[in-house]
Amino acid sequence: MTLVTDPTAPRIALIGATGAVGSTLIELIEERGLRYRELYLVASSRSAGRQIPVGGQTHEVRSLEDFDFGLVDIAFFSAGTSVSRAWVPAAVAKGALVIDNTRAYRMDPDTPLVVPQINYAVLDRPPGSGVIANPNCSTIPLVRVLQPVERRWGIRQVVVSTYQAASGQGHQGIEELLEGTEVALRDPDADLPSERFSPPLAFNVVPFVDELQDSGFTLEEQKMVQESRKILGLPDLDVTATCVRVPVVNSHSEAVWVQTQEPVDRAELVGLLSRQTEVTVHDAENRAAFPTPLKAGHPDHVHVGRVRVSPHNPRGFWLWLVSDNLRVGAALNAVQIAEYALARGFLSGGVR
Amino acid sequence: MTLVTDPTAPRIALIGATGAVGSTLIELIEERGLRYRELYLVASSRSAGRQIPVGGQTHEVRSLEDFDFGLVDIAFFSAGTSVSRAWVPAAVAKGALVIDNTRAYRMDPDTPLVVPQINYAVLDRPPGSGVIANPNCSTIPLVRVLQPVERRWGIRQVVVSTYQAASGQGHQGIEELLEGTEVALRDPDADLPSERFSPPLAFNVVPFVDELQDSGFTLEEQKMVQESRKILGLPDLDVTATCVRVPVVNSHSEAVWVQTQEPVDRAELVGLLSRQTEVTVHDAENRAAFPTPLKAGHPDHVHVGRVRVSPHNPRGFWLWLVSDNLRVGAALNAVQIAEYALARGFLSGGVR
Repeated sequence: MTLVTDPTAPRIALIGATGAVGSTLIELIEERGLRYRELYLVASSRSAGRQIPVGGQTHEVRSLEDFDFGLVDIAFFSAGTSVSRAWVPAAVAKGALVIDNTRAYRMDPDTPLVVPQINYAVLDRPPGSGVIANPNCSTIPLVRVLQPVERRWGIRQVVVSTYQAASGQGHQGIEELLEGTEVALRDPDADLPSERFSPPLAFNVVPFVDELQDSGFTLEEQKMVQESRKILGLPDLDVTATCVRVPVVNSHSEAVWVQTQEPVDRAELVGLLSRQTEVTVHDAENRAAFPTPLKAGHPDHVHVGRVRVSPHNPRGFWLWLVSDNLRVGAALNAVQIAEYALARGFLSGGVR
Repeated sequence: MTLVTDPTAPRIALIGATGAVGSTLIELIEERGLRYRELYLVASSRSAGRQIPVGGQTHEVRSLEDFDFGLVDIAFFSAGTSVSRAWVPAAVAKGALVIDNTRAYRMDPDTPLVVPQINYAVLDRPPGSGVIANPNCSTIPLVRVLQPVERRWGIRQVVVSTYQAASGQGHQGIEELLEGTEVALRDPDADLPSERFSPPLAFNVVPFVDELQDSGFTLEEQKMVQESRKILGLPDLDVTATCVRVPVVNSHSEAVWVQTQEPVDRAELVGLLSRQTEVTVHDAENRAAFPTPLKAGHPDHVHVGRVRVSPHNPRGFWLWLVSDNLRVGAALNAVQIAEYALARGFLSGGVR
């Protein structure tokens, strides 16, 4: 139970409350005991009227079109980029602090792009735009390991290949993968559903996440470059990625090759990463240990394995990262932003 | 029907004939009309006695332990590294030319490691060891695209992440994936079979293929480095890999980042790759087109997509490769080696 009558506790709205990230936000608000005075679950008119229990109370989902943002201090947006573009300005105008989980505001110069473990200091002042942006799900675990490496050895280049789960396309992405898999098991030649993933993802890997850009890179690949640079404050960071969807239900993995300015010692690298907040290194002792999406450990950690320096180049090493894309890569990061903002006391609503 | 009475046609044995690569060899010998005077299917005593139709005739599988290699001119070995280590010397001693699909002889200086499209010239003389080695399934498609790039622009570094299919662990690997997937669909918390893949591969990705080496790299990762260098004749080639198993039945994919000495033009790169033998470039015209394991096209080609030069570094580009690991990555390459050897007339048996 985190509903409190304390007038300094915020009034919160979750926009996209019925989606995969929204449901995870509800779970996390309960688990972490985030204090609130009011909680509004908001979604499209299609979902309005649904009853969802939170902290022992039943909440009715409200329609975004009729929602009064004047009622809340914090609005979490996780209903897609077009919804954020349409509704965030109204929420800000009514005085709500927006924590946005889409790409709508990430590259806006007046909007901080925040991974609390890495660059919370940009929240020393309230955001000029009224919006704090939550980064892309593949970028968050990456910058969590890159920052300490940059500080210790200096980064020359980062090359990333991702192995991204179906849940990145929400509940419908998961359903399409499971349905397609069932059909394919019965008949390998059957046509599989391919609304969310095209070609179908069942027993396949699809090297195409989000839209194609003029550069030939996808938007997902471009986000990893631009967002990493902004979060780390390294506008010229040399990072490049191939983003691939794999038939995994949840948790993204990444194979990360890092080249550094100075030679790297594996033991020191393992020690450094192990000391990061909410990072678990699996192969510190047993080099045959590694995380996978189905067996990683604490769902709120970035999991690291296969830490190995190149035998022919001490300025190059590989990492294998696994993290829950709905939690670490989305909802948890957003909740941690809210926790930090509340601790700093710069909410624009109820605590004014 | 490729059984012929022509005395210059070779007598052939397939060791490991009932395995995934062995079955594919049989398919390819039929499809390509490889001429033979005799064909012996050989396997472990467990499989001996099985009847397998080839080219309209039924062949009884013979037991390796009782097989007389003096009966054949060419012996294809695809029954695992330990079987090759134990039996290849006997086959060579009896005068058979061995085409070995395991890692037993690949790094032996007297054994050529051959991808016919790339380095057939090393077969200008019969192999000193009596063995021609077939490279690793992930290495073959890689060198097929790297050689023309090296010749045109010079390679500085290659960084590869693989997405390898269950068939790399043979029929049993495929069965374990399908069985595990069926169990997981019924009960996501059930224990899944994990004899071939550990942890289980169903709805998972496993960044660990083959044994761990002292360097912290796996044997699969080490093979890609050592074999690429040997095939391309570039002993200092800077190549590094992370090898990952994915829940795909057949066909390996690779995300390949290449850095070159000279700036690369995408149109020229696409043209160059398109002109390679048995290579298909999917995104020459439509940049949103790409191959996947389930939808690549000709099963005997290396399929290339996502060809893109880095917008901030004209000396770096990505390729996405897909190829049938049982064909292009194993059996087809072995058959093409045999075709070349037959054309050169250096068989040590029946054509002497």
